Amino acid sequence: MRYFEDVEVGLTAEFGTYAVTKDEIREFAEKYDPQPFHLDEAAAADSVFGELVASGWHTMAMCMRMIAENPDRLAAFAGVAADNIRWHRPVRPDDTLHMRSEILEKRPSSKRDDRGYVTTGFECLNQDGEVVTTFEATALVKRRSVDEAG
Amino acid sequence: MRYFEDVEVGLTAEFGTYAVTKDEIREFAEKYDPQPFHLDEAAAADSVFGELVASGWHTMAMCMRMIAENPDRLAAFAGVAADNIRWHRPVRPDDTLHMRSEILEKRPSSKRDDRGYVTTGFECLNQDGEVVTTFEATALVKRRSVDEAG
Repeated sequence: MRYFEDVEVGLTAEFGTYAVTKDEIREFAEKYDPQPFHLDEAAAADSVFGELVASGWHTMAMCMRMIAENPDRLAAFAGVAADNIRWHRPVRPDDTLHMRSEILEKRPSSKRDDRGYVTTGFECLNQDGEVVTTFEATALVKRRSVDEAG
Repeated sequence: MRYFEDVEVGLTAEFGTYAVTKDEIREFAEKYDPQPFHLDEAAAADSVFGELVASGWHTMAMCMRMIAENPDRLAAFAGVAADNIRWHRPVRPDDTLHMRSEILEKRPSSKRDDRGYVTTGFECLNQDGEVVTTFEATALVKRRSVDEAG
């Protein structure tokens, strides 16, 4: 894991792999986003997508999973914000996703000396190298002193 | 459902109800956001939250469910963007959430006369009337002519 001191603006990374399945697209949609083009292949064929596609919020959840599993992830107390989410292309059954990231901004907390804010830009890409989703996320990140004090 | 012609900037609404459970918080976290404060009560007690809390992406998914179930929702071809997500307060087991919305912007598509873009501001509140999450979402919305042309 990377602490506040370990990252600088401009640092990039590539990580993650997520195999998307039709069953999982439907399961997420039934629970959280029951629109026809996420649930039913016939209805999806008649939609602007022309085929079954994952909910945009499901894509965000899959991105979060890849971020959480990245051994070089930030040592975060909490996520505080997400900005500029753009769903550029559909995510479809049998896609395999991966992630690219770049540190965009870091600033110490003005109130506590054991933490700081880090904003990361993320791209989620499919197996053809097409960017499906982009977003920025800001986390409250630990300084090394927190865990070294223990 | 409301078509592009049916909404004006400034239109507000209040809708939805979602009962949050500990089981569902853990289930989502296991699948998509396996951080200790979303999974384990002892680890959560030691975190900045002091108790088990829902993943911010789980909160977004619960908001989407309430939006999708609102009978007055927009007749959308697709979601295209989400902006300014702020997780102001934690969402906890046994919270009951609801939503407030306001139409912030609408503009016709420059390419197609059967659709337009609508940006809605959303607040997600808990049973104590505290705002837990705010965000804006932009959808590509049908004009009435689409479904009347049948």
